Amino acid sequence: MTGKAVVVLSGGQDSTTALWWAVDKFGAGNVEALTYDYGQRHRVEIGCAARIAAAAGVPQTVLPINTFEALGGNALTDANIAIDNGRSGDLPATFVPGRNLIFLTYAAAWAWPKKIRHLVTGVAQTDYSGYPDCRRNTIDALATALSLGMDFEFTIHTPLMEMSKKDTVLLAQRLGALDAMALTHTCYEGERPPCGKCQACELRAKGFREAGIEDPLVVA
Amino acid sequence: MTGKAVVVLSGGQDSTTALWWAVDKFGAGNVEALTYDYGQRHRVEIGCAARIAAAAGVPQTVLPINTFEALGGNALTDANIAIDNGRSGDLPATFVPGRNLIFLTYAAAWAWPKKIRHLVTGVAQTDYSGYPDCRRNTIDALATALSLGMDFEFTIHTPLMEMSKKDTVLLAQRLGALDAMALTHTCYEGERPPCGKCQACELRAKGFREAGIEDPLVVA
Repeated sequence: MTGKAVVVLSGGQDSTTALWWAVDKFGAGNVEALTYDYGQRHRVEIGCAARIAAAAGVPQTVLPINTFEALGGNALTDANIAIDNGRSGDLPATFVPGRNLIFLTYAAAWAWPKKIRHLVTGVAQTDYSGYPDCRRNTIDALATALSLGMDFEFTIHTPLMEMSKKDTVLLAQRLGALDAMALTHTCYEGERPPCGKCQACELRAKGFREAGIEDPLVVA
Repeated sequence: MTGKAVVVLSGGQDSTTALWWAVDKFGAGNVEALTYDYGQRHRVEIGCAARIAAAAGVPQTVLPINTFEALGGNALTDANIAIDNGRSGDLPATFVPGRNLIFLTYAAAWAWPKKIRHLVTGVAQTDYSGYPDCRRNTIDALATALSLGMDFEFTIHTPLMEMSKKDTVLLAQRLGALDAMALTHTCYEGERPPCGKCQACELRAKGFREAGIEDPLVVA
């Protein structure tokens, strides 16, 4: 693809795979990574993202978001709320309402003065945790709102949208991103090496197991 | 209307009129005001918003947004950039890309745990400064994205959308909001009493003049 792209890079497995996808499609010289410092429970993610961007050979920008903590009361930003290792009610306990809407809107606002039209995110609607702002229809509606709201045609690329964790691992392998997986962070408990017991670790392990590939993070 | 509403209250003329509209429609006991502390050039607006909410008899919450300053380079947040008293290129110099998308998305994220479905904003697509995120089609697309992204049906009310400044003044009069106009802030130069010369002051003065009503802010 021609043009330039910005990848929302959290430092996790999926956004890292999405970054390698973008480098493959646009070329490393046309890709930038954007990471948010939003008061996440595990700040280790931000350093992971920096090392991952460096490994991909793309510049990284960290943007601060202090609003989520002020909104309050969710597990990913509030260390006082225990992680519910599953789901409470219809949504996971780690749900920050609209988090991906905010991430992508800021990505567009950051891309706009640079005339970057392509936004890339690692969200997926399959196999995962049921965040409604990761779904195809949400992302499509947001792309419309962003394009109209900034008078500039954005495309939101979601290369992992329909993939199982297994498929994501196989995609990472095909893109040469497996080594970078050792740099990612997944564990909800914030442990490195990962705890292996939380829901996030279990999902990740299942994906690598089904793909028949050893997880470089666990091997490391 | 039944239910509860949150009004995005900047402390300006339009959001104040929108607040009075919401109180009229939902009842003061069902309305809350949300104000953003986003590094605006004129922090006086935040105090204005607090006094306006008190005058309306509704609780006000101030949410911090430190991300706009990090995005940088626009006149409303960067005191080093002179206000272009008009427009540079297609958009006003005061354009923060997607500012209203962010304001409304945070309003939805704030409203969501309280099960508040009605979001109210004073944006208008007429007579104003051409911000694309104030237009009807943008707001409609955003309402879809928010409802899908938070799995909760939001309605975004824009009572001023099609109104001229004159009509807005007449609406404020009908709603009994004229006294509160003395509490609002409009001047781009940040002056109180207003400078009377900047584009914002001129637009405001034109509206009151055409409505045949004295501006309580100027009289005060």
